[in-house]
Amino acid sequence: MAYRNINYEKTRTFCEHVFKGYGFSEEESRIITDVFLFADLCGIESHGMQRLNRYHYEITNGMVNVHAVPVIVKETPVSAVIDGNDAMGQLMAVKAMQLAIEKAKKSGVGIVSVRNSNHYGCAGYYANMAMREGMIGISMTNTESIMVPTFGKKAMIGTNPIAFSIPADPIPFTFDSATTVVPRGKLEVYAKRDGKIRNGWAVDENGQESTDAERVLNNIIGKLGGGILPLGGAGEENSGYKGYGLGMIVSIMTGILSGGATDNYVYKTGHGSGIAHFFMAINLDLFGDKEEVRKRVSTFMQEVRDSDKADGQDHIYTHGEKEFLAKDKILSEGIPVQEKTYEELKQIAEYTHSEEYLPELM
Amino acid sequence: MAYRNINYEKTRTFCEHVFKGYGFSEEESRIITDVFLFADLCGIESHGMQRLNRYHYEITNGMVNVHAVPVIVKETPVSAVIDGNDAMGQLMAVKAMQLAIEKAKKSGVGIVSVRNSNHYGCAGYYANMAMREGMIGISMTNTESIMVPTFGKKAMIGTNPIAFSIPADPIPFTFDSATTVVPRGKLEVYAKRDGKIRNGWAVDENGQESTDAERVLNNIIGKLGGGILPLGGAGEENSGYKGYGLGMIVSIMTGILSGGATDNYVYKTGHGSGIAHFFMAINLDLFGDKEEVRKRVSTFMQEVRDSDKADGQDHIYTHGEKEFLAKDKILSEGIPVQEKTYEELKQIAEYTHSEEYLPELM
Repeated sequence: MAYRNINYEKTRTFCEHVFKGYGFSEEESRIITDVFLFADLCGIESHGMQRLNRYHYEITNGMVNVHAVPVIVKETPVSAVIDGNDAMGQLMAVKAMQLAIEKAKKSGVGIVSVRNSNHYGCAGYYANMAMREGMIGISMTNTESIMVPTFGKKAMIGTNPIAFSIPADPIPFTFDSATTVVPRGKLEVYAKRDGKIRNGWAVDENGQESTDAERVLNNIIGKLGGGILPLGGAGEENSGYKGYGLGMIVSIMTGILSGGATDNYVYKTGHGSGIAHFFMAINLDLFGDKEEVRKRVSTFMQEVRDSDKADGQDHIYTHGEKEFLAKDKILSEGIPVQEKTYEELKQIAEYTHSEEYLPELM
Repeated sequence: MAYRNINYEKTRTFCEHVFKGYGFSEEESRIITDVFLFADLCGIESHGMQRLNRYHYEITNGMVNVHAVPVIVKETPVSAVIDGNDAMGQLMAVKAMQLAIEKAKKSGVGIVSVRNSNHYGCAGYYANMAMREGMIGISMTNTESIMVPTFGKKAMIGTNPIAFSIPADPIPFTFDSATTVVPRGKLEVYAKRDGKIRNGWAVDENGQESTDAERVLNNIIGKLGGGILPLGGAGEENSGYKGYGLGMIVSIMTGILSGGATDNYVYKTGHGSGIAHFFMAINLDLFGDKEEVRKRVSTFMQEVRDSDKADGQDHIYTHGEKEFLAKDKILSEGIPVQEKTYEELKQIAEYTHSEEYLPELM
């Protein structure tokens, strides 16, 4: 896996032209690009430029409807349910979180549930939108089933990430994690190394723990059984049922509350992917002086970072810190992309008539 | 560890007399007893009668104020912040969740944040209160620090359970889990077996993984360093930072939002324990016909239970199912208690003048 860098600003310009090339408006293209580059800025390769090709596929195959008009199907002062009508996930999610924030400004809390959307990228992006408004932001999404429930051998639940963000200084708290023990991308990375994954990450088609990355991935692709384990691993010994339960909570908050598809029916709706999301914004004014709350979060996070390190360790990170620290490096040194990813970008550039904006390799 | 059973109904009567003996009213004693016996009915020994002695200690030492009058310090149509003034945790929590439910009936959502309370028993009890009203119930509490953050060697975060409940047939969904990989009680059980705990459960005073149950427990008791690992285990390999982050979210939602003590200051307030809670009730009417939502949850849970079992397994449980199945057995066969627990009950009976109600061993 050879990596080369591409300039951040040039990549932004390129992306905006690509999305305009698919038919999105200037404003829409700017929004989608911002979500994509948030991932790369955080150093989360899996959800950034590396994944543009997946969206290219979904847009050009009509799974994502470029001209979708989402509809609010039910609304109260504290909530809304939206049918995305197969909209681009990033656009749908930004609109939904904006609505949750508006409601939280007026009513203290805003809950927005979305069905018939598509992959929305980093869950943390949307949680951060509320955080930047001085609120708690919560964002969840279901995905195609890949998690095998405790004692099962068939994937029934998605990677189902939970993101939670709250303002703090100097580093906001942003938690953004799949409820599986590892994401699929990590299996792919290990498969490329020496074909071995760690015990406790995945099960084979018989529901037995497997360290054979190729076999597990082929099973997932071919839907032959098995999949990734919940956070906590196999069986009950290390509490894998907790990760499985957290995954179920996300399934409930997304596919079920929105009236959309549950994880096991995602990509089987006959139209779009059927992915569903959940967003919540909570106004910190509910809990007294919001600046005081912010100070208390900052103090606690600092106390945790300053606490005694394990022998051999010199840094305790709080959630969002690594991403916060990654930003400057990416801005100055560029976004690392694999050669394969760059080849994909070339084809996407051609399809969207954006060749002149394709950033050169640094 | 020899177990003998005590009759469920007689234990209920005994408990009610015990709490009246401490000075709680008849109604208060009934409420506290109900929370205690919920744990035993669910087969969760650690939070039931076995723990009565701990509360005896906290009540008789004045950490729990039997006559506390909690005060609402801030209130909106969707929220309240309550100072518990060192109230009995179970009483405080029931009142707080009742308030959250009332608000959710009127406004769709109710959020109640509580500071200066005490241990409240099973988090799931309060989530279930909202579930029985046809709502989503969420309940969290901080506790004394026992979780060591990733790369740390000092306990900074509590066991910090998260409970979530939603109606479903025939078995409601009730998730109730500490964000540590295992609870402290599990270390105690393993220590009594052969003194060994599993790798990935705890770290010693140097922040290194340890399987020496005695050493880890002594360190915890003596505050010598080390503690229990977050869900996901040590380091980053199996995503222990996810359990650590979930624990931090609970710290934020409880001690920080309520303006109370964070986990690292619990039991160091100079008065009560300073434990803080968070409760949320969400009215399912927000998402359309609540009976339809209930049906969708039921269907998804059934599909998960019916999905292919791993070789050698014959049952996939959904969350709350084991507890649901335990109930009939306890009602007919009684509550199993250790001899040591029964000796404690005898002393408690004497202190509270409830000897005549002490259930005999079956």
